[in-house]
Amino acid sequence: MTKHMFLKAATGVAFLLSASTALKADVVPVSDDTRETAAMLRDKALKSDAAYEILESLTTEVGPRLGGSEKEAEAARWAVAKLKALGFDKVYTEPVTVSKWERISESASVVAPYTQPLSITALGKSAATPEGGITAEIVHIPTYEALLEADPADIEGKIVFISNRMERFKTGAGYGPAVQARGKGAAEAARKGAKAIIIRSIGTDSHRLPHTGGVNYEEGTPPIAAAALSNPDADLLERMLDRGKPISIHVDVQTKFHGDVTMHNVIGEITGREKPEEVILMGSHLDSWDLGTGAIDDGAGVAITVAAADMIQDLTKERPRRTLRVVLFASEELGLIGAKQYAEAHKDDVANHVIGAESDFGAGPVWALASKVSTGSVHVVDTMAQLMQPLGVVRHGREAGGGPDVGQMVKIGMPGIDLMQDGTDYFDLHHTADDTLDKVDPEALKQNVAAWVVFAYIAAEWPGDFR
Amino acid sequence: MTKHMFLKAATGVAFLLSASTALKADVVPVSDDTRETAAMLRDKALKSDAAYEILESLTTEVGPRLGGSEKEAEAARWAVAKLKALGFDKVYTEPVTVSKWERISESASVVAPYTQPLSITALGKSAATPEGGITAEIVHIPTYEALLEADPADIEGKIVFISNRMERFKTGAGYGPAVQARGKGAAEAARKGAKAIIIRSIGTDSHRLPHTGGVNYEEGTPPIAAAALSNPDADLLERMLDRGKPISIHVDVQTKFHGDVTMHNVIGEITGREKPEEVILMGSHLDSWDLGTGAIDDGAGVAITVAAADMIQDLTKERPRRTLRVVLFASEELGLIGAKQYAEAHKDDVANHVIGAESDFGAGPVWALASKVSTGSVHVVDTMAQLMQPLGVVRHGREAGGGPDVGQMVKIGMPGIDLMQDGTDYFDLHHTADDTLDKVDPEALKQNVAAWVVFAYIAAEWPGDFR
Ligand SMILES: [Zn+2]
Ligand SMILES: [Zn+2]
Repeated sequence: MTKHMFLKAATGVAFLLSASTALKADVVPVSDDTRETAAMLRDKALKSDAAYEILESLTTEVGPRLGGSEKEAEAARWAVAKLKALGFDKVYTEPVTVSKWERISESASVVAPYTQPLSITALGKSAATPEGGITAEIVHIPTYEALLEADPADIEGKIVFISNRMERFKTGAGYGPAVQARGKGAAEAARKGAKAIIIRSIGTDSHRLPHTGGVNYEEGTPPIAAAALSNPDADLLERMLDRGKPISIHVDVQTKFHGDVTMHNVIGEITGREKPEEVILMGSHLDSWDLGTGAIDDGAGVAITVAAADMIQDLTKERPRRTLRVVLFASEELGLIGAKQYAEAHKDDVANHVIGAESDFGAGPVWALASKVSTGSVHVVDTMAQLMQPLGVVRHGREAGGGPDVGQMVKIGMPGIDLMQDGTDYFDLHHTADDTLDKVDPEALKQNVAAWVVFAYIAAEWPGDFR
Repeated sequence: MTKHMFLKAATGVAFLLSASTALKADVVPVSDDTRETAAMLRDKALKSDAAYEILESLTTEVGPRLGGSEKEAEAARWAVAKLKALGFDKVYTEPVTVSKWERISESASVVAPYTQPLSITALGKSAATPEGGITAEIVHIPTYEALLEADPADIEGKIVFISNRMERFKTGAGYGPAVQARGKGAAEAARKGAKAIIIRSIGTDSHRLPHTGGVNYEEGTPPIAAAALSNPDADLLERMLDRGKPISIHVDVQTKFHGDVTMHNVIGEITGREKPEEVILMGSHLDSWDLGTGAIDDGAGVAITVAAADMIQDLTKERPRRTLRVVLFASEELGLIGAKQYAEAHKDDVANHVIGAESDFGAGPVWALASKVSTGSVHVVDTMAQLMQPLGVVRHGREAGGGPDVGQMVKIGMPGIDLMQDGTDYFDLHHTADDTLDKVDPEALKQNVAAWVVFAYIAAEWPGDFR
């Protein structure tokens, strides 16, 4: 969305505010003061470069920050320094135990009947091939479901190639069906005797930049090497296979497991003036895959949530009623590690987690607001949506999940909000070397912060209960 | 351009033909028969998958084919077999001596004050760094011109970083100014004592896929390693430099020179029925850089020229008056090697090269026709342009150069035609790993063949002289 569109849309604000619904006697209203402050914050956010500057700093000074690596530790030091420099009331870390995995090298090529290099990347947490790699015929399996049904006699001793294509949707709805090949394909292929597995990248682009992402093994099956081909390379293999001759490829993936290391969730708080123990949880993850600089995944989320909380402390006369807690989770990409350990550590304190939301879907504009809150607080989310309407945000009817990380707390009882982003282009870049700062539209980043200040300020200031 | 647009535009044909200019008494007219056959060929070409099938075959079965490599030799064998299978009247090769260069490995990273990997590729024919690479501070030079003016004291012992950005134009006009950094930067940097040179890719995209391309050294200056950064990496370095601290990087480029080898220009002919010794030269190059599969550079040109000549032999009642000679030049990317040796070998036969054109600007549609022909034959090119008007082609006033390869013959007296293609996106892909079949629009490829059959058929059939 362009700046011009924001400004045009903003002329509708007065109307929307005056049209607010009459409330039942037993619900706690959102005060006019709160609405006005939220609108002021929103309008200032649309003019602020703060999030972009945070993102520029993270991607330039730290860059790739694989969970469990020294670079993730460096990112945590960067985050602590940044939150302190911005003047957050409290900045602290909580330890997270992470099983460290290292990518060493990866290469592949077609060796017969044609010879061509293939652009691949090891999936995250992939096992290694034997040193020097392996050469075998590939067996083409269209989907994970087809692999489940495949005869082991057709798989044994071969390299499984799953070619399913992810479809493009604004909501990212194409990811779930396609990503099973990545998450679960290796275990199933190994069960049927495959020597390795390669998949078409779970992504919507056509560049020679394969998409990594976590693979999961299962007890009792050998951990075979698992890699993704770039989409043009998957096209190439399919064209070769169309010729009807057996295709042999060589795959060499070298990786290493280092055991447990300690990383940290980094937390910054703006302390509530009345109920400091009650927190609004604002989540994102600090780690990234190692191929890119983690600009959209999830530097954008870090920047949006940090900038939103910082803007509220900077621009309001007094601290909001409740505490704003920004949590930059560790090692999300390796399996929500930081978030799961946060939920475990704070499970007895769920009652003080008033509501939470997460930003982890790139830097596309927020287009919808969904919630999972008590009946008596639905009107507050409606008010948030009204205040976000000039940003192009609509109220969405589905129940919020809270995002992968913050969702760990929603699962154990915390109310949640989804600020749903337009992810049309997200999977062009997701988990690739192409996840870099130039892909982020600074105007869309501002729009995100504008939506987030409305949510966070009202959630922290409104005196009622979302639970 | 879409198929629909072609069909709509085609309704204008009858009008255009009837509006043909009255000719002076001393010029040889293009007969109605010739026009009608050219129009028939054009319309059939718009419906033919022949060029796409040739391109699919080359990119799938051969792929990358670096000049001087065994893969280029393989491509020549593929081409001989393809031309024979298509039924060309004569298929033969002419030897070309090529100095063989090999890319072994390449890597780079920022080492201080930040640590980040950089995506680089060695420029073609780059020297190697010492084994294990070199580490040095970078000195930021905006352009080649600025490097010419730089004080050697600022360059000595450093790695030169030239950051000029190529601008996007339909004609590719941004290439010339920017590419000097690639072609001549290394020699100038070496003259001033640099340890290596890295440049921003000469390309218009924003992907982590650097653009290679030839570098030239000069006698008397040390051949320093030369590499290109992907554009997002060049952005990153610039952002780091903006912070005002010295930036050190590590660069490791391993390459090897193997001395002279023999490659081949591959030639296919449709023999003229009246003047077989007079040839219409239809050029493209068979080699590609090693990073991609050479779909747009220059598999498309191979496919367009071969399909056009083949279509003329298949669809006309008799062979055209003159010979159609399709030349697939060897090792163009290494410095027009095949074309220069063709011009040398055929310099005494220029008189029989009636006219020539080249396809080496990707698979974008032809939008203009330029010429360098005798005054008395300008009207023939005008007629070609009229027949191409339904394809969206306009007559261009500039003098034709004939393209890099075919231009070697134009320089020594052969008339030339430029079928100018829309290169708006060409430099997004040019010389990168992303130069793959999926980037080619099959409809645009058909449009190219349709323009080429009009040119080639009329040039071969018209009885007059272009010289
Ligand atoms: Zn993420
Ligand atoms: Zn070329």
